[in-house]
Formats: sequence, structure tokens, C-alpha cells
Amino acid sequence: MARFFLAASNIRGGVAYLDKASMDHLRVLRIRQGETFTVCSGDGRDYICRLRAQGADEGCAEILEERVSSGEPSVFCRVFAAYSKGDRMDTAVQKCSEIGAGEIVVFPSARCVSRPDAAGALKKTARWQRIAEEAAKQSGRGIVPRVTAAKSFESAVADAAGADLSLFLYENEREISISSLLNAGRQLRTVSVMSGPEGGFEPAEAAFAAQAGMHHVTLGSRILRCETAPICAVTAVMLLTGNM
Amino acid sequence: MARFFLAASNIRGGVAYLDKASMDHLRVLRIRQGETFTVCSGDGRDYICRLRAQGADEGCAEILEERVSSGEPSVFCRVFAAYSKGDRMDTAVQKCSEIGAGEIVVFPSARCVSRPDAAGALKKTARWQRIAEEAAKQSGRGIVPRVTAAKSFESAVADAAGADLSLFLYENEREISISSLLNAGRQLRTVSVMSGPEGGFEPAEAAFAAQAGMHHVTLGSRILRCETAPICAVTAVMLLTGNM
Repeated sequence: MARFFLAASNIRGGVAYLDKASMDHLRVLRIRQGETFTVCSGDGRDYICRLRAQGADEGCAEILEERVSSGEPSVFCRVFAAYSKGDRMDTAVQKCSEIGAGEIVVFPSARCVSRPDAAGALKKTARWQRIAEEAAKQSGRGIVPRVTAAKSFESAVADAAGADLSLFLYENEREISISSLLNAGRQLRTVSVMSGPEGGFEPAEAAFAAQAGMHHVTLGSRILRCETAPICAVTAVMLLTGNM
Repeated sequence: MARFFLAASNIRGGVAYLDKASMDHLRVLRIRQGETFTVCSGDGRDYICRLRAQGADEGCAEILEERVSSGEPSVFCRVFAAYSKGDRMDTAVQKCSEIGAGEIVVFPSARCVSRPDAAGALKKTARWQRIAEEAAKQSGRGIVPRVTAAKSFESAVADAAGADLSLFLYENEREISISSLLNAGRQLRTVSVMSGPEGGFEPAEAAFAAQAGMHHVTLGSRILRCETAPICAVTAVMLLTGNM
């Protein structure tokens, strides 16, 4: 069934008030009056709707059923990814959103080749936010993962370390696997995964993260590209918490 | 350390005889006489070499050490992926090769939009083979995953079903997860994972695969893109067999 996001404020009294973006979407999908589709308020709830009235720029739909979105994992996984070159972050954002990431935070790291200034970061995160929304729609998520930019490596670490479990993907870590930390069977509400740029993290960064309480982990003996590592890490988190 | 593949026949008597491709590679990496690099014979062995003589089109290097490649997982995971549109297969081949796939087999499936003829399949697999080699080099693999094309869905299934464990990624499967089949702790030498095209598998295809002994499995409640599913499946296999 067609599915898109609509602000929760547009959903009230059993009616979904459709904005221009929604109407454009319905037109593309050739959905006509009387036909049904799903609207998602972005807070984990889905609404099965029937299109009632249709203008050029707005419309409204009757809500037939409200339910908890089945696409949301039980764990809120935040991905902290260092800026990378070219379209690598596009791939990471798209795949992590499909797989079940709850939020994506980009940050500057010592070996980053790409280091956008404040204006550049704003432009880039807006682009990644659109990619996340598209991926969330397509994969049947109940929320759109928010994409934000951290000001510094240190502030990203402080934020990441606040999770129930925080994983720092570090190529110099040879022993501790994600499985060894997640197989304990304990219930986790929040998990952070942090991955570095093309050249990896500096040892000083790794020490800082450990000091803040993050766990250094390996993703095995193969050297993963900087956009592949967070994809594998989110997959591991979903798999090992029973969400895949 | 710089690393590339060289045919095993070029490695003999403690010497690596470098071909033109290798010399080009060394030039790009600015490796000069007396400097060291790794040559991999593609059968899971690495050779630490020191460059001795250097011509325009050939050269030779002394082998300082021979060792089992650390980049090879203990399980041989074959990925069977249905043809998909655009550059989706490029992404799947690259990521699966990095993560640890042993071989990639492409096949036609009922809902495939892209269905290359024999000449087209040859051209496409040659392209994917180059992507696999590049990914294997970059990630420190001990082999280059071979990319081949199966003639039909049926022959791909017959081939896939021969593994110690064969997984058929099916969106209509809601219960059986990859974890439930791989957590048994048994030693697996070979695992197959088979994933469908953009529109998923036909029910008749799913029935045929089950009949052949493949296990229907889910990758959770989110709908993954056709190139994302095999990436997650190979990650799951590596993770649950202790190779990540």
C-alpha cells in the first residue's frame, strides 16, 4: 500500500489533512478518491486512510484505522558517522535508514578529508535528511531518522556515550566483537555506533572515546570502507537485539 | 601495506614475478626498489615481498614471508542475487565482497526487470568481477570472490541448496530469522543466501526453493531494497559464525 509521512498536527478528529507534498505524492501514485493508503505521523504510528476530497494543493482523507507501525525496532540505534568524501554518506544514510537506525549524526574527525563549514554542513544534512525520508518511506519505517551534524568529535562522543550501550568501531581493536557485547541477552533501549572517516580514527580519538565510556569493537579482520562499517554495525545491532 | 593479487603461477622459488598490471599498481603507489608490499595469490595465501628489479612492464620481488591470509572467514558464503536495475548490483557486489562473501552468482527471476541475454550477462559479470577484485584488494581479502551468472532460477536454486545451510530471503516469511538457524553453534563450512529482484520472489519460486531444501528466512519487518538484503544477509552470516 502507498505510504508517506504527514506531520502529526495534520492528523486530528479521525481526519488526515493532506498538504501539497502529500497531494503531489498521491497524484504520482495515481491514487483517486475512495482509494486507500497509509499515512505515518513519524512518531511510530500508522494511519490507514481513504481519500475523500481532492484539490490541487490540499485534500483530506478519512482515517479507517490507527495502529502502531510494525516497521520500528525495539531498540533506538543512533549512528554517529564521520564526514566522508563523495557520495559515501548518501549510501550509509540510505542503508542505515532502511535497516532500522533511529538517528544519524555526522561529525568531523581528525582524518576527515571532507570538513564542511557550518553552511556546508547545513546543506549536506538537509540532503541526507531527504535521503533518510525516502528510505524510511520505501522500507515501511514508522519514523524518519533525523539527520543532524555534531559540532565536534568531542561533542559527538559525549552524546553517543549516553546510550545504554555505545560502540566505537575501531580497526585497532582485534578482540572485542559486537556479538560479545550484545549477546548478553539484556534489554537495551538505546545503542550508539560510531564510525570513522576513510583513514580511520586517530589513537587519541579512540582513547578519548574509551575514556568517555564507549566500547572499542572490531567488525572482523576485513577492512571495511567507511560507509560499509556503519551499515554492518546497524545490521549487527538489529540482528542481535531480535529486530531482524 | 600495499596489497594486490597476482596469479599463483607467478609465485615460485621464493620470487614473485610481477606482470604489467602489478607494475602499474606499484607505480601508482610509488613503491620503489627495496620497499615492501603484499602479494596475494588468490587462494587464501599472502606473500610479503620486497621489490628487487623494476622494468616498465615487468619486475620481480623477493618473498620475505608466506602466510595464511587473515582476511578469509572460516565459512564460505555464496551469494545468489537476482538481476536488478541500474547500479544496484554494483553496490551489492562491492559490499558483499568487502564483508566476506566467497562467491556471487547472479540469476534471472520471474519479476526481474533487467534480464540480460547471454552476451549481456557476460559483459555484466565481467564488470562485477572487476568490482569484486577491487573490493577484495581494498578490504584485505585472501581471495577474489568469483562472479558468475546462472542460466535459470532453477539451476541457481539447485546450486544454492547444496550448501551446509541455504537461506532463501523471502518477504512473506514472518517468523524464521537467520539468527534462529545460525545460532545452533554448529560448524558450517558453506552457507548460501539467495535474494530476489526489486519486486521480490513469486510464491511459486519460494515454493520451488523450499522443495529443494532451502530455508525461507525473514530479515525483519522493514522492507529492504534488493541490493541491501544480500548485504545484511552476508553480515548476519559473518556475525553469527564468529567471523565479524
